[in-house]
Amino acid sequence: MQTLIQSVLTLQNDALASVDVLLTGDRIHTVAPANTLPVAPHQRVIDGTDRLLLPGFVNGHTHSSQVWQRGLIPQLPLELWLANVFDSTPGQLDQFYWGAVSTAVDTLMSGGTCVMDHAYVIPGQEIETMAALVRGYKAVGIRAVIAPLIQDLPFASGFPKGCLLPQSASPRSAAELLAMMAAIVAEFHDPDNGIYIGVGPTGFHRCSDELLAGCRELSDRYQLCYHTHLLETRAQKRLAQERYGISAVQHLQNLGCLTPRTSVAHGVWIDEKDIEILASAGSTLVHNPVSNLRLGSGLAPILKCLQGGLNVAIGCDGAASNDAQNMLEAIKLGTILHTVTDSDYENWLTPEQALHMATAGGAKGVNLGDRTGTLAPGMDADLVLYNLDHPSLLPRTNSLQLLVLGRPTDVVEAAWVQGRQLVDQGRLLTVDTTALHHNLRHQPVATKESQAQHHPVESHYRDVMLNR
Amino acid sequence: MQTLIQSVLTLQNDALASVDVLLTGDRIHTVAPANTLPVAPHQRVIDGTDRLLLPGFVNGHTHSSQVWQRGLIPQLPLELWLANVFDSTPGQLDQFYWGAVSTAVDTLMSGGTCVMDHAYVIPGQEIETMAALVRGYKAVGIRAVIAPLIQDLPFASGFPKGCLLPQSASPRSAAELLAMMAAIVAEFHDPDNGIYIGVGPTGFHRCSDELLAGCRELSDRYQLCYHTHLLETRAQKRLAQERYGISAVQHLQNLGCLTPRTSVAHGVWIDEKDIEILASAGSTLVHNPVSNLRLGSGLAPILKCLQGGLNVAIGCDGAASNDAQNMLEAIKLGTILHTVTDSDYENWLTPEQALHMATAGGAKGVNLGDRTGTLAPGMDADLVLYNLDHPSLLPRTNSLQLLVLGRPTDVVEAAWVQGRQLVDQGRLLTVDTTALHHNLRHQPVATKESQAQHHPVESHYRDVMLNR
Repeated sequence: MQTLIQSVLTLQNDALASVDVLLTGDRIHTVAPANTLPVAPHQRVIDGTDRLLLPGFVNGHTHSSQVWQRGLIPQLPLELWLANVFDSTPGQLDQFYWGAVSTAVDTLMSGGTCVMDHAYVIPGQEIETMAALVRGYKAVGIRAVIAPLIQDLPFASGFPKGCLLPQSASPRSAAELLAMMAAIVAEFHDPDNGIYIGVGPTGFHRCSDELLAGCRELSDRYQLCYHTHLLETRAQKRLAQERYGISAVQHLQNLGCLTPRTSVAHGVWIDEKDIEILASAGSTLVHNPVSNLRLGSGLAPILKCLQGGLNVAIGCDGAASNDAQNMLEAIKLGTILHTVTDSDYENWLTPEQALHMATAGGAKGVNLGDRTGTLAPGMDADLVLYNLDHPSLLPRTNSLQLLVLGRPTDVVEAAWVQGRQLVDQGRLLTVDTTALHHNLRHQPVATKESQAQHHPVESHYRDVMLNR
Repeated sequence: MQTLIQSVLTLQNDALASVDVLLTGDRIHTVAPANTLPVAPHQRVIDGTDRLLLPGFVNGHTHSSQVWQRGLIPQLPLELWLANVFDSTPGQLDQFYWGAVSTAVDTLMSGGTCVMDHAYVIPGQEIETMAALVRGYKAVGIRAVIAPLIQDLPFASGFPKGCLLPQSASPRSAAELLAMMAAIVAEFHDPDNGIYIGVGPTGFHRCSDELLAGCRELSDRYQLCYHTHLLETRAQKRLAQERYGISAVQHLQNLGCLTPRTSVAHGVWIDEKDIEILASAGSTLVHNPVSNLRLGSGLAPILKCLQGGLNVAIGCDGAASNDAQNMLEAIKLGTILHTVTDSDYENWLTPEQALHMATAGGAKGVNLGDRTGTLAPGMDADLVLYNLDHPSLLPRTNSLQLLVLGRPTDVVEAAWVQGRQLVDQGRLLTVDTTALHHNLRHQPVATKESQAQHHPVESHYRDVMLNR
């Protein structure tokens, strides 16, 4: 099957250019100047006039099952918000299936063709949960990297002075978790079909060194993405000093956990030395601007990361901390937010840089930079076609800038993943969204009323973090 | 004509409640507990099940003609961005008509029922421009306060050390501008039909004291809203010190310009003493979070304003600095942005506070707090009905929070302004949006290529503001 997209705008070397693009099987075969490629028999021909073709975005960090908690949890700092998240986490396997479908659909319809799902999995039903997630992503057809959240330290250990809190039962041991991960890789890692397993220790704050290093070993053995939360909050920065006496980034480096396959989510509280370490390691920082504001985590030093040569990706984060999974929204905020950190506008992010972060930057972050994120011959055909004549992209002043800085809605006209067309004329071709919305509407969910006003850990948090 | 909305959710005393609402003529007649109002003959009855009814938002600060420049201008600080805006300002009267229509439609379809248009008007064609704007707003049916931008100091005077810049011709004198404003009031101020004139001196930075005080006199004489830009940028703060030796807020207070009818846009660089002055005067600060980030103006001290008892409204600002006129987007960002300015989450804005700012806060800001912005008997029926079953508001965890913190799209099912229904079943009943979009698509507009890479004032700006 060949598809020829004729005379379409795209971004080449940070400038708009009009090109013909030929897709063959699952790959991009040719990119040529507009109106130069001949039409062959049996080719599907798409008129690209007034359209923009970009590599699909990578939603670089999310937690798919939080779809069931979106809108639910008040604005609280991560540590207290998380207590509420745990209290209302869904427990049914089909909720995980629909969570994956919903996350995939929202990502896709806002320009994304790949999701990094740092996935909550039901304790004791990890394999079944993974199966439900994989089924969801395959139903939509999006590329998915699934890194189950694993931790071997109890909840209280994630707080500075957590030893003062009541200690809940410890989760499973590092050895058990690593064995489980090996089984998950064996069963679900399936690159040919666009499903990848990542190793996803929750974060240094809830993981022993044994688990963090063991994950590195798995990442090496199977060439997997290593994905972890890192210094999202001021509390985590304090905890790292308390526990290690050095920064969490240096500690991860000492354990060998920072490689070109590593992506760290947030990094709000990394400093210049940390940036240097992460950049030297060839790792990736995933910026989640909406979530960082929603939880009051702070302003990640993204301009300094880029100046320091650190690869940056963009994520939505889970729907309990960004109550939409819209990549264009995350990209817009990620572009405009950092102006307040640098008075010299020559350092501000351009729309082209933001798109690079969301595409090639994101692809590198999930260890797939050689397959996706770039519109070039030989790359997988993970592409999104935007309708530049949509009212939300008018007038036609600078379409690329308006795509990034406007509030585009319903502008994804077509999308392909590994050459398979998933969206046509703005409609999803794979799953039945009516069934999705019926489920979201009618399954029982936690509501405002079910949320405790004050969680038991709150007074500890206030003592430790605010009464300083 | 009576309309009975039965059994609809609304916000009463910051809590969701289910009510019946009866509209009579242009007013809200009764608000009663759900299913208690009898249906009378000839009433239109609307089933409010799974719907949320809120007072319409006030788009507290925008510049409607910038619709033609959205997406156009790169991210630059206000002073340099403005030079680009001037170079690409539309000059045809019908562009002003369509600019008003587009601004009104986008505001309305995102929950707004009133616009404060701090309007650019064509020099020498001020009356004709005003007529075009009024025609646009009346065509849509939205409530509009139009404050023509007036200034009597040249462009260069808006820069610190502006005397070093080449001096362009001065605009018209204060006396001429005030006479023109009196004529505009006489011709267009029409409260019964929802069209109000405001006095809108551009800002202290481009206005003489004579003009600033003369506007106050007009505001007193006709009871008009006084609307002006104030301390949007660090450069303006420096300019005020250079010119007055005191803060711009104190200067405006000394001139008598701060009254309960005054609303000031931005206030990014106001300090605690300024907040105290503005609050004591009963004035309003209009927060424009998207624009403030897009132009790198900074973080307005909104939490401190609220703590200081200063009324705060929310605006989109013009489409050249917020490339969408979506009130829900501005409200979301205004809600989550300020977490980074205060580590104590108990001070963070709640969704309820944000909605209050966008409704009652905005209504007070345009001097219409006794007519709109509140759902109560006797108030004008400026109301918006949201469909809580729309996919972008699912699942139904906490609908109010998801409306504010999610990314709702196409959720406005119905809207009324002064009792007249403008939107029904998600469709605009008044203007033909196809004609609007045809115009936005086919009228010639400035494009990226027409934008100079470096404006002549740039080196001055860098010298004064960055080489410090």
